[in-house]
Amino acid sequence: MTSSQRPRLLVLDTEPRPRLGRLTGRATVEYADASTLAERLPYADVLLVWDFASLAVRDAWPRGGPRPRWVHTASAGVDHLLGPGLVADEETVVTNARGIFEAPIAEYVAALVLSMAKDLPRSWELQGRREWRHREALRVSGGRACVVGSGPIGRAIARYLKALGLHTAVVGRAARAGVHGPGELDRLLARADWVIAAAPLTEATYGMFDARRFGVMQPSAWFVNVGRGQLVVEDALVEALRKRWIAGAALDVFDREPLGPDDPLWEVPGLIVSPHMSGDTVGWRDELGAQFVELFELWEAGKPLPNVVDKQRGYVPGH
Amino acid sequence: MTSSQRPRLLVLDTEPRPRLGRLTGRATVEYADASTLAERLPYADVLLVWDFASLAVRDAWPRGGPRPRWVHTASAGVDHLLGPGLVADEETVVTNARGIFEAPIAEYVAALVLSMAKDLPRSWELQGRREWRHREALRVSGGRACVVGSGPIGRAIARYLKALGLHTAVVGRAARAGVHGPGELDRLLARADWVIAAAPLTEATYGMFDARRFGVMQPSAWFVNVGRGQLVVEDALVEALRKRWIAGAALDVFDREPLGPDDPLWEVPGLIVSPHMSGDTVGWRDELGAQFVELFELWEAGKPLPNVVDKQRGYVPGH
Repeated sequence: MTSSQRPRLLVLDTEPRPRLGRLTGRATVEYADASTLAERLPYADVLLVWDFASLAVRDAWPRGGPRPRWVHTASAGVDHLLGPGLVADEETVVTNARGIFEAPIAEYVAALVLSMAKDLPRSWELQGRREWRHREALRVSGGRACVVGSGPIGRAIARYLKALGLHTAVVGRAARAGVHGPGELDRLLARADWVIAAAPLTEATYGMFDARRFGVMQPSAWFVNVGRGQLVVEDALVEALRKRWIAGAALDVFDREPLGPDDPLWEVPGLIVSPHMSGDTVGWRDELGAQFVELFELWEAGKPLPNVVDKQRGYVPGH
Repeated sequence: MTSSQRPRLLVLDTEPRPRLGRLTGRATVEYADASTLAERLPYADVLLVWDFASLAVRDAWPRGGPRPRWVHTASAGVDHLLGPGLVADEETVVTNARGIFEAPIAEYVAALVLSMAKDLPRSWELQGRREWRHREALRVSGGRACVVGSGPIGRAIARYLKALGLHTAVVGRAARAGVHGPGELDRLLARADWVIAAAPLTEATYGMFDARRFGVMQPSAWFVNVGRGQLVVEDALVEALRKRWIAGAALDVFDREPLGPDDPLWEVPGLIVSPHMSGDTVGWRDELGAQFVELFELWEAGKPLPNVVDKQRGYVPGH
């Protein structure tokens, strides 16, 4: 096979680059950044969105003509890709990194829930002041959790929270076995001790955690967002914390990332901020690269791909 | 029944006092502190050690003569009671608060393990500096834990860690089903990612975590103590942390409590300090009081008491 016959793989990349050594001699690999993506896309068969924080695909996707017929993103969420052009493009399949992030994110949520219950942030603050101050912590077991988002990440979170003894309800776009429909959301929020946002960002979920929803929650409730920043109306959350409508919150994702040093969110009382790392455990980039290579081999062999995104809905449906 | 016929209950107390309203008219309740305990003990049928941080019983226990025939401590550990006088006293039964602290402590250990894996203390530090710095966290699932202490607290911790996907070994004083004997301790420590100390303080466990044992552990290992401070040679732990023999540690219990503001432990790099609160969740004092009342009713009816401490061994054996 000459190089001209090899599939042309375009990587929208960022450091550190993916390890694609297994594709040597099997694909022609080129790299692009946001400024060169549009001009390279017509020459690519496959696009790997390795820089999953980039919004470049939304703008650069060609309106017809030659273009990749397969786009894979090294992320669970696909909102950063799905501009009108790619959504309407019936000939291009989009896949995501389903399978990589579920357990790490579920562990991270469990870490946040338990830390807040056990008042660990306060313990660290007191340690810094060399102050011994005994407090009574919360029991996690026996409490109620509401996980918003019924995809594999939401369901993995629910499994972990159940293992910790929490009565856990999952809310999704539509009711099904083990999943409550959106009509039950407010009722479940109103009785939850722990509310976990883990939904994909879609038109239906954009800004869903607003002043009204924080108002529905109990004053003793804790809110965690590991989905997408835009699920939350940040000003409404800040006000809910300041007015003590809820007990506290932890955000790992934000409307604008990274947070700049002047962002007021860093210092909201009762708000824990972390830098979008809930799914990222040692070795995660290698796992993402290996997953892409596996999918590439299926694609090369003409076999059906897993993890295919429903571009209208904005996530991988089913299961 | 006249007051002289009622059993005389002496409470070695501290604020807030136990709620013993259910014993009104059924027991004559008196209170003592460390300075008055010795003079009051000969007039009591039952001693409730509500101030479980006090060492007063060790010194004050009478060498013969009238004395309580039942001592209950509102704690899991009994090392603070068991001086030679009470240990040798064959006519006095000692009971503890088995059943109250297991799940809270197991949750607390899970909180510490997950927090350390997810680098949460560093996230809080970075939040305080308004600094967005993404890191890769550790996966908990698939790792190995070694829980030292095979009583109900150690076994509850093991259940939680297993639920988080950790391969978890329990080490006790003697091998039995599901519990490794002390001869296997070093081998298990050498391969553990997480070492949890949850043993009772006895002659066999005093200072068991010494320089040699920290030297056996992996440089990537994390150590947690929720048992008793004296299980650990604190200077050896500090040296192990400074020399990076282990990755980090969390102590909820200490050789001397409370830690004074000048204690060097507050500022050891890699050491998380909390004020002996792992078992103490909202409502815990009420639970301890209610448990004592339950046991009192059994004792009053002449029925056998649960939670009876083997005073030679220093813990409630069996199960």
